[in-house]
Amino acid sequence: MTAPHAIEPDLALAERLFDRLRAASLDPPGVTRDAYGAGEEQAHAICIEAARGCGLAVSRDFAGNTYATLPGVDRSAPTLLIGSHLDSVRHGGNFDGAAGVIAGLSALAGLRAAGVQPRADVAVMMTRAEETVWFPVSFPGSKAALGRLPAEALDLRRSDTGRSLAAHMAELGFDPDAIRAGRRHLDPARLAGFVEAHIEQGPELIEVDRAVAIVPSISGGYRFRNAVIRGEYAHVGGAPKRVRRDAVAALAHIIAGLNAAWDQLDAAGHRIMVTVGVIGIDPEMATWSRVPGEARFTLDIRAVDLPALETMRARLDALIAEAEAKHRVVVALGADTSPQPGFLNDALLERLRAAARARGIAVHEMPSGGGHDALAFHDAGVPAAMLFIRNQNGSHNPDEAMEHVDFAEAARILTTLAATHEG
Amino acid sequence: MTAPHAIEPDLALAERLFDRLRAASLDPPGVTRDAYGAGEEQAHAICIEAARGCGLAVSRDFAGNTYATLPGVDRSAPTLLIGSHLDSVRHGGNFDGAAGVIAGLSALAGLRAAGVQPRADVAVMMTRAEETVWFPVSFPGSKAALGRLPAEALDLRRSDTGRSLAAHMAELGFDPDAIRAGRRHLDPARLAGFVEAHIEQGPELIEVDRAVAIVPSISGGYRFRNAVIRGEYAHVGGAPKRVRRDAVAALAHIIAGLNAAWDQLDAAGHRIMVTVGVIGIDPEMATWSRVPGEARFTLDIRAVDLPALETMRARLDALIAEAEAKHRVVVALGADTSPQPGFLNDALLERLRAAARARGIAVHEMPSGGGHDALAFHDAGVPAAMLFIRNQNGSHNPDEAMEHVDFAEAARILTTLAATHEG
Repeated sequence: MTAPHAIEPDLALAERLFDRLRAASLDPPGVTRDAYGAGEEQAHAICIEAARGCGLAVSRDFAGNTYATLPGVDRSAPTLLIGSHLDSVRHGGNFDGAAGVIAGLSALAGLRAAGVQPRADVAVMMTRAEETVWFPVSFPGSKAALGRLPAEALDLRRSDTGRSLAAHMAELGFDPDAIRAGRRHLDPARLAGFVEAHIEQGPELIEVDRAVAIVPSISGGYRFRNAVIRGEYAHVGGAPKRVRRDAVAALAHIIAGLNAAWDQLDAAGHRIMVTVGVIGIDPEMATWSRVPGEARFTLDIRAVDLPALETMRARLDALIAEAEAKHRVVVALGADTSPQPGFLNDALLERLRAAARARGIAVHEMPSGGGHDALAFHDAGVPAAMLFIRNQNGSHNPDEAMEHVDFAEAARILTTLAATHEG
Repeated sequence: MTAPHAIEPDLALAERLFDRLRAASLDPPGVTRDAYGAGEEQAHAICIEAARGCGLAVSRDFAGNTYATLPGVDRSAPTLLIGSHLDSVRHGGNFDGAAGVIAGLSALAGLRAAGVQPRADVAVMMTRAEETVWFPVSFPGSKAALGRLPAEALDLRRSDTGRSLAAHMAELGFDPDAIRAGRRHLDPARLAGFVEAHIEQGPELIEVDRAVAIVPSISGGYRFRNAVIRGEYAHVGGAPKRVRRDAVAALAHIIAGLNAAWDQLDAAGHRIMVTVGVIGIDPEMATWSRVPGEARFTLDIRAVDLPALETMRARLDALIAEAEAKHRVVVALGADTSPQPGFLNDALLERLRAAARARGIAVHEMPSGGGHDALAFHDAGVPAAMLFIRNQNGSHNPDEAMEHVDFAEAARILTTLAATHEG
């Protein structure tokens, strides 16, 4: 039998699949694969056809997730899932999500071609609706499969169509009632793990000159989607500084202070991300000629570096107190909707490191700044791990530019992992 | 003949007029007198009836400004105008604008009651549409009377009705074609001056414990209504600080820096106002999960203190350069639509000071932070001057709270001014 690290993934299949997906979802600039819509559904159809062509067993669950299974010798042993999502943002790139699915398919196709049967089942899982621009909920496909999607999520509206998640599911022939009934398709006790390959969404692998990273953790921290500062509206020319309660000046104090604190943490080698993505004032009151009495903002602070998170949270609280005193305003952060940092499964990560070593692939190690389906499995108690693939120009834009040679390295690591899966 | 400083304004008339105006324009909370609409028109009607009742000669110009004239002995000598506007913001207070008109009427009514005829004509001018919340143009009533309203302004839409200034004028029976034809109703050579009494729009008279201020100047400086910062959108979790081009972080740097510079100027005794009234990002791109690639804002910097204006402008330029370098963005301030500071007429101001001295009224001196109709006359080369009347709770809100005893002091100064007008 071929040594596991000598089996090649089917890279020609991978290239064909990337090309077919791009052609099917082209929406210049970039591609659009709308979640629980025609774009995502067509991507599943293309991958299903390819999986069947490789002799994999294809099935779907009630939420429309697709599984392409290479049966193991012992069908009763726990299954290893390799997967990611097939939707994209509007006018996104061709690789965010699809790379993880195609890496899994090329690995299992490679095993089939080499005539290698793992000890236990390995399946490529193609999830649904991972991009929250469509439905405002994280990982509904993965969570539904695991029986962890709250029934209320079915009523969420897709941002463009205005129709509910349930309606979109039903239209494609899936079964939202199974979610309402609290059913699950995947039993964590029957899963050996979930491994997700994904393009890196930043420039780090380019900077360190590595094709692939092992991702031992997923960032979390603080996320305030509806923060507000309340002061008092006043006449632009009548109110001197000493009496103003200027909500925008207070917000600027907080944002500038957070950026200064971030510079300090960066300089000290800490890894953290601080983003005020939205700022605004009441459109009814918005005019250049009025001191703003209210300002709204979002704030996302994320890291896996717990001391850095603590430092930044303390700094945020201090900046709020300063802004309130200096500008006589009240700052209300609102609900914190951030997940906690997720520290992925050590044993599974170690198997990825061993597979890379066996292949002679030098890997970087870095946390994920973004959330991924792997987090849904981790939260459900399933061993989870991730790989990042080097990629230029970030993600969620038409200019994603993963090189095929980098993708091949990730696919090789997954091929070894699948070949050596023992349940 | 009664000594000018012994003539009392008709304060009972003033109280009745304030009550009638409030009752006619009540729109809880506060009052609404919509410019070139039913609210403003009714206010003019109430004041016209009162003026006629006092024996003043009432006329209107093609733009709907109303004049209530006390003829002088020499009808050919230049006219002194005392006036202000009769519109209000929506849910505003009863005194912004109306106080200046009613002060003028009570002064001329006092002269009539005392049987005093000035040497030359004195007229109360009731202007139109001074509040820019209705039509986005400054002083259209005064400018039209002076032949200085550009014809394009007739096409501006009222913010609530969406109908043009020309349509609103025509509906009330006025003549927008006269404005199109470039006509003027008032000849600066025939005017001795324009004196405007107005409630103070800040707390300074309360702090210095004076009922009235002489206003020798009107603030100007820099006004950017459409400033924009352009960076680059990026993934909230993928883009580390060193690669971000965060437009909101850059904006915060500028606003926080301007506030710090303002604190320094304040501490050094300079008087200046700095306001970022509007902040926002492209609503299509607004999400907590994206590093903001663009931010929009307005910036108004105003003073009569020219060194302070220069200092702040230099600081603004430096902050923009810092923000551009630090955050790799481009800042475009756009057009500067601010008037220059207006230094009002020394001789007319001296007559107001003399009138106050003759009455034994101790007056404060302070610049105006806001623009007023007086500025339109000043810009047209007409001697202009202003009085501020002490007022609690600022202006443009339902809580304006001018005390009648303070109003009376301003009316007395205007009564002396009118009685001694010699053309």
